[in-house]
Amino acid sequence: MLFRQLLDYESFTYTYLIASGGGCDAVLIDPVKKHVDQYLQLLKELDLKLVAAIDTHMHADHVTAIGLLNQRTNCESVIGKESQATCATRTVSDGEVLQFDGFQLDVIYTPGHTDDSYCFVMGDCVFTGDTLLIRGTGRTDFQHGDSASQYESILNKLFHLPDATKVYPGHDYNGMTVSTIGEEKRYNLRLKNKTKEAYVALMDNLNLPKPKMMHIAVPANQKCGLEV
Amino acid sequence: MLFRQLLDYESFTYTYLIASGGGCDAVLIDPVKKHVDQYLQLLKELDLKLVAAIDTHMHADHVTAIGLLNQRTNCESVIGKESQATCATRTVSDGEVLQFDGFQLDVIYTPGHTDDSYCFVMGDCVFTGDTLLIRGTGRTDFQHGDSASQYESILNKLFHLPDATKVYPGHDYNGMTVSTIGEEKRYNLRLKNKTKEAYVALMDNLNLPKPKMMHIAVPANQKCGLEV
Repeated sequence: MLFRQLLDYESFTYTYLIASGGGCDAVLIDPVKKHVDQYLQLLKELDLKLVAAIDTHMHADHVTAIGLLNQRTNCESVIGKESQATCATRTVSDGEVLQFDGFQLDVIYTPGHTDDSYCFVMGDCVFTGDTLLIRGTGRTDFQHGDSASQYESILNKLFHLPDATKVYPGHDYNGMTVSTIGEEKRYNLRLKNKTKEAYVALMDNLNLPKPKMMHIAVPANQKCGLEV
Repeated sequence: MLFRQLLDYESFTYTYLIASGGGCDAVLIDPVKKHVDQYLQLLKELDLKLVAAIDTHMHADHVTAIGLLNQRTNCESVIGKESQATCATRTVSDGEVLQFDGFQLDVIYTPGHTDDSYCFVMGDCVFTGDTLLIRGTGRTDFQHGDSASQYESILNKLFHLPDATKVYPGHDYNGMTVSTIGEEKRYNLRLKNKTKEAYVALMDNLNLPKPKMMHIAVPANQKCGLEV
């Protein structure tokens, strides 16, 4: 497999480039608009054909590249159906399987951070967006976030994956790049030994400031990052 | 293999944690002093025994953790013999093989960025420090740097590795995490189609500002990051 983890330093967003090899289909997960030229150059250098640009959810901290990548490459722009992003060329729902040259992504609906949050499983990897972070979880206090749903998404869906599954999150703020399901079960203090009620109480009292970019990013992302 | 790439956001230094699995020896390459507690926690969580903390060269942009890790864990603190860092418990030279539980590091002397620069090959990966960066190369204008030596180190040593070898650099400033030898042969514009003379002329006229931390980092690193 050809696999690249790319980092946006401003929002600490991880973008993932996946392909089975040169000359094949490629997918970008959570691409950031301002890096489109970098992505296109890398795709060209690696001799890849971008076929899908996927958002794990409607982001509030950066402007998505899925619309612009669709315009520039004719790839599908993909997001969960709950996003109601009519700008996307394709929406996904729980249980779908996205097939590409030499690999597939299994689609898991994981509401909680937002009501349109999805995770994508590829072999022994899972791309968790802002649902499950490394030793953390995504905030649940806007965009129809719901702490109880997030707890269930993680405990009943993600934590049912094999312990060795590599966790590739949508962000990390501590310089970490990857974890595993087993590690998060054992060492994620937001979740460890917590009842759903205790988790909800914790999450509902984080009192975080709103993301700096939110007033720009959310309206922009409702249009797949176009018209900004 | 258990493999973690960790990023220091201040100096954009990549640190690598390598082990063959839980319960085994672990190695840290280019650890940063201020993250020692993070490393020790991760080592504990992953049930690893740190046996070596290795610097690819004497850094000028961050304070190394190799001395403190030696003090805290009794691991070897390792650097190239040309560094003359008498604080290190072990020095390495070209052609040595460092053996650990389930893996080995082949030591390649690659002077150029500094006169004590080394790369380490592990299977299909090479840790290139500041010798070869992604689409770039490390500057050569201090600490006995030498552009002609760097050109030879890259062309005659690193570029003799198989094209599929993954390149894990000491830094990246554009959000990239990994490349390959084949890509760098084809797309590294500092090197592509350059004679040694053209490379030397390019590197000797970069006119970069000195690293902000240099006046602190170099004297500190001459003592393995202790006494700071």
